[in-house]
Amino acid sequence: MKTIQTQVAIIGAGPSGLLLGQLLARKGISNIILERVTGDYVLGRIRAGILEQGFADLVREAGVAERMDAEGHVHEGVELVVDGTRTRIDLKELTGGDVVVCYGQVEITRDLMEARQAAGLDTYYEAAQVQPHDVKSDQPFVTFEHNGEEYRLDCDFIAGCDGFHGVSRQTIPEDVRTEFERVYPFGWLGLLADTPPCHDELIYAKSERGFALASQRSTTRSRYYLQVPLTDKAEDWSDDDFWNELKKRLPEEIAAKLVTGPSLEKSIAPLRSFVCEPMQYGNLFLVGDAAHIVPPTGAKGLNLAASDVATLYKILTRVYETGDRRYIEQYSEIALRRVWNGERFSWWMTNMMHDFGTEVSNSGLEGQMFGRFMTSEIDYYLNSEHGRKVIAEQYVGLPYEELKEY
Amino acid sequence: MKTIQTQVAIIGAGPSGLLLGQLLARKGISNIILERVTGDYVLGRIRAGILEQGFADLVREAGVAERMDAEGHVHEGVELVVDGTRTRIDLKELTGGDVVVCYGQVEITRDLMEARQAAGLDTYYEAAQVQPHDVKSDQPFVTFEHNGEEYRLDCDFIAGCDGFHGVSRQTIPEDVRTEFERVYPFGWLGLLADTPPCHDELIYAKSERGFALASQRSTTRSRYYLQVPLTDKAEDWSDDDFWNELKKRLPEEIAAKLVTGPSLEKSIAPLRSFVCEPMQYGNLFLVGDAAHIVPPTGAKGLNLAASDVATLYKILTRVYETGDRRYIEQYSEIALRRVWNGERFSWWMTNMMHDFGTEVSNSGLEGQMFGRFMTSEIDYYLNSEHGRKVIAEQYVGLPYEELKEY
Repeated sequence: MKTIQTQVAIIGAGPSGLLLGQLLARKGISNIILERVTGDYVLGRIRAGILEQGFADLVREAGVAERMDAEGHVHEGVELVVDGTRTRIDLKELTGGDVVVCYGQVEITRDLMEARQAAGLDTYYEAAQVQPHDVKSDQPFVTFEHNGEEYRLDCDFIAGCDGFHGVSRQTIPEDVRTEFERVYPFGWLGLLADTPPCHDELIYAKSERGFALASQRSTTRSRYYLQVPLTDKAEDWSDDDFWNELKKRLPEEIAAKLVTGPSLEKSIAPLRSFVCEPMQYGNLFLVGDAAHIVPPTGAKGLNLAASDVATLYKILTRVYETGDRRYIEQYSEIALRRVWNGERFSWWMTNMMHDFGTEVSNSGLEGQMFGRFMTSEIDYYLNSEHGRKVIAEQYVGLPYEELKEY
Repeated sequence: MKTIQTQVAIIGAGPSGLLLGQLLARKGISNIILERVTGDYVLGRIRAGILEQGFADLVREAGVAERMDAEGHVHEGVELVVDGTRTRIDLKELTGGDVVVCYGQVEITRDLMEARQAAGLDTYYEAAQVQPHDVKSDQPFVTFEHNGEEYRLDCDFIAGCDGFHGVSRQTIPEDVRTEFERVYPFGWLGLLADTPPCHDELIYAKSERGFALASQRSTTRSRYYLQVPLTDKAEDWSDDDFWNELKKRLPEEIAAKLVTGPSLEKSIAPLRSFVCEPMQYGNLFLVGDAAHIVPPTGAKGLNLAASDVATLYKILTRVYETGDRRYIEQYSEIALRRVWNGERFSWWMTNMMHDFGTEVSNSGLEGQMFGRFMTSEIDYYLNSEHGRKVIAEQYVGLPYEELKEY
């Protein structure tokens, strides 16, 4: 067995792990990333592309914002459509200046990968059998196999950025952790196409036929979604079927401008709300999807991961720069406050914008009554200025938690 | 059978029926009220006492506001307490001037009864076997028995102000109406005492021991509530038990000021959200509890009844003053929009402020996760200025619906 050493072992080379590594490295804190698959595989994952102000600032702090700032599109608003009636949430005006940046997760990941490579920081791709050990001790370590060789990575801390199916969360004993989960009674059928977006901002549309989202990755690449039954299969949907259904769910004047084209990718994703408490166990910290999943409504997934990164980065920087270790034990509590806010917002947006049919979807609440409550919720929140501000300030993202005496 | 006649037959002499009768009479529209019980029995019902601005204005328009304006207490704020941490919702400041008036429903009812008597308007108390007929026709009528005599009351319109258990809603055929209902997994144990209130505004308190409400009817009469299991019985709770438990659920400094005393009344009420759609059938209009019930959290019950009265009053006044009948068929649609907003707000406040334990209380949501969402909901709404404004503008009451082209 080969033994290597670093200060922070990071499991997972997705955007969270890479961003954390980059931020720490710039503060002189050594780190090594272990990734189960190849870099190309990581870049093949199609994901969200709406970055909160706080995330964009963090990318700038990491020194990898050049392309994001050049190519990303600032969105000053977002549109909510109910049965054809359009309401624009003017994010910038309603929040007093905050916006979101439309820049694909894949692009962020690529920028971070390149920066990491340029800085000569170690990443072990295709690391197998990754396993954290002794995480409750002061000398945790991670074992793994790489190129047929067995490794032991000694470290001070382990950041579990390895997603929902990763080993990190499983390392927390079952009797210590509580997992909260809600699986929604529908999925999203997504289609990616090299066509210009039908609108310059995102459109969340609720209609009698179900929910649709018109989003984008760039000025030439569109990403559209349809709410579909969980029993549907992507292969049952031809591109034509998809485009036809999408047009019926979007406002007429938007549908009329819709440019269709062959799909680059088409898949169905289930919608899930998931949180693991606590988000740490000794010197192992869960970051992002390893600890929590949100339904994509509201685009909070990547952004919540980023706020975990920000919190952990601040805590570790303080440890190494000042020797102040008192926040280590508080990572979970600090991170979870913002996580639950994001989970709640995503749950709320999902509830409001989807058709639940007669599914018993709330509170011993018969499904139809839940539908009425949600119709009223939309009626109130879109027609009240305060309601629109509540949507806007959460959509651009609540402020990151500060470290303070807890 | 004795035949009598009026323009509007009103079933029920609670505050809704009396207020509607008073308003119509002042516009020269004749009306007769039929009430199943005695006036004293009606006045014996202990009910809410927080009047929205719109309600107070309507009472003024009815010309019966003298005592309310002299003896009612303006509340410029309301307090929400979570685990001892107090947040005052400054209604006046957050809404730009709106407040609520604390004045008991019994007092309003008494004022309206006296005004009706002084005006010499007919009310048949202890009317038995009340039954609307031919409500889909232009010549509806109501039959009833009074003092051993059978009556037929011919009229143009029938206002069903006879509460949840009244005959009016049952008059709408079952296949025409849809009833939405949510019964909550707990009740409120209420205690009325002739003791000065512990605080000059209402206090809604959530604690690990459950919800409590400190409210009042006057400077010398207090009304307190405790969330209790539905299996509890009022007679199992001694006054001492009640006061002791209440002290544990209120903030310490408030509990220290609590003046206890013998209960004048103690009872347990279940919490229910209920809506009947439509709220009309031909020339029969449902008003207030006949069509909808809210849980008392947020004090919307009487206020929603008042907004129904306001809507029906405007429609009928237009009919008799200008001959414009086009809104008659739209009463239900117009009234329901505000009803659902009030239902939603009451449901939301109830969800946020109560302990649901592990009860499956939402959305195929395991109870504990719902608890976390509600904790986050409170965290967000109380700490965001926009969130506080959303609470405030709904607590003082959304504007009454205007009659416009629908």
